[in-house]
Amino acid sequence: MKLLDVRTIFVEPLYEINIGYIARVIKNFGFTELYLVNPQIKIGTQAKMMAAHAQDILENAIITKSLDEAIKDVDFLVGTTGKPGRDHNLKRAAITLTEFIEVIRNSKVYGKLGLLLGREDHGLPNRVLEKCDIVVTIEANSDYPILNVSHAAAILLYELYKCMRDKQIHFIHKASGEEKERLIKFFELLLDKIQYPEVKKQRALLAFRRLVGRALISSTEIHALYGVFRRTASLLNKCSEKSLFQRCSNSNEVRC
Amino acid sequence: MKLLDVRTIFVEPLYEINIGYIARVIKNFGFTELYLVNPQIKIGTQAKMMAAHAQDILENAIITKSLDEAIKDVDFLVGTTGKPGRDHNLKRAAITLTEFIEVIRNSKVYGKLGLLLGREDHGLPNRVLEKCDIVVTIEANSDYPILNVSHAAAILLYELYKCMRDKQIHFIHKASGEEKERLIKFFELLLDKIQYPEVKKQRALLAFRRLVGRALISSTEIHALYGVFRRTASLLNKCSEKSLFQRCSNSNEVRC
Repeated sequence: MKLLDVRTIFVEPLYEINIGYIARVIKNFGFTELYLVNPQIKIGTQAKMMAAHAQDILENAIITKSLDEAIKDVDFLVGTTGKPGRDHNLKRAAITLTEFIEVIRNSKVYGKLGLLLGREDHGLPNRVLEKCDIVVTIEANSDYPILNVSHAAAILLYELYKCMRDKQIHFIHKASGEEKERLIKFFELLLDKIQYPEVKKQRALLAFRRLVGRALISSTEIHALYGVFRRTASLLNKCSEKSLFQRCSNSNEVRC
Repeated sequence: MKLLDVRTIFVEPLYEINIGYIARVIKNFGFTELYLVNPQIKIGTQAKMMAAHAQDILENAIITKSLDEAIKDVDFLVGTTGKPGRDHNLKRAAITLTEFIEVIRNSKVYGKLGLLLGREDHGLPNRVLEKCDIVVTIEANSDYPILNVSHAAAILLYELYKCMRDKQIHFIHKASGEEKERLIKFFELLLDKIQYPEVKKQRALLAFRRLVGRALISSTEIHALYGVFRRTASLLNKCSEKSLFQRCSNSNEVRC
């Protein structure tokens, strides 16, 4: 595994030409992995033609039926959108590519980054963006910010290539996707324990996921946090639900 | 004119699809000018399809027969190559895109930048690169550094867009293309006056052109340099050729 390895995951591709071009830019920037999630077309001669000297990338592309299969061994998942949401739309809340690269440069990353691209018609749906650690948008003309997917891929992979090449210094072990999921589960458990209203809970959960994602948290840090949530959940468990929430409604605080 | 305006000049396009995609990325990054030099194909429905919501860029594209027509009012000309030369190959000697953006950011630029792209089959020929103030190459995988032309355009225009947007500080008047040509002519005159051997002369001339280009020289600076060359040439003129080069062969120096 490279210090920072990138898997490009193209969600429900509609056009062969974009598959071919994306294979080409993957190779142009020294990456290798292409996953195609539930392609809507057969990959034929047009894709091959556009891939040019990146036939190997195209031939080794892995086709999956579901997104979950494509991301299961990914350590941090990056969504992309040409339509970033405003602050109140947490699901689509995006950082710019420049900010993202700054985050990567300042962190000590080691692991597999999953870069989600697509769909060509409507972008990535909210249910997909929700799974992401970070959502990134490429700064562009506000009158027409929607790039063709392969051009977006070129810009993103160019920037990641430069990061990877420049990162030659002491790397520490980045938390794996599994470790982060476990931390998020602990947090969710906590939200359940405090009987947080469903709507607020979903917002809090997503915010926490993004926080963990954007910080590119280390394995050591994550283990330190497990402890906090585990202890909190365990203490809450010791209280009977009734007494806990009675006290809560009296004092506007959860104590036990 | 914008603080930094970019004209994209596509040399001898061979494929409609690339024309369309380039029109689209021009609009994506807030630029407007597209010049097509001696297109090898008719611009039809495929170009229109790929241009998507950038039909205006495509419709307003200016077609010229020669490169000189397309660059005549350009202030600094940027060539692009996926095959940068080594040090001894001055014509193809390129700086990286990262270095180029650094130059632009550190300079106080005001003017029109001509960005040369093409040809899709063999890149820009040496006779075109010779005309450029700067030759730029996009850092990429050395095993396969050749990007599709529209993907190269996307990366270049993205970087220039960010520069332009960030440049909000005191701009001074950048030397025009004409002023720079005049300075280079003065330098050439000097080379003639010292009877510099033809091969060395061409190398020196190209090196000087690149120097002037890369420094993104200001109008004031250029006028300071005119004086030096003008005075030198004028002093050389005062000497009879014979006595000048006699003395020169005796002392290994040109004096008068």
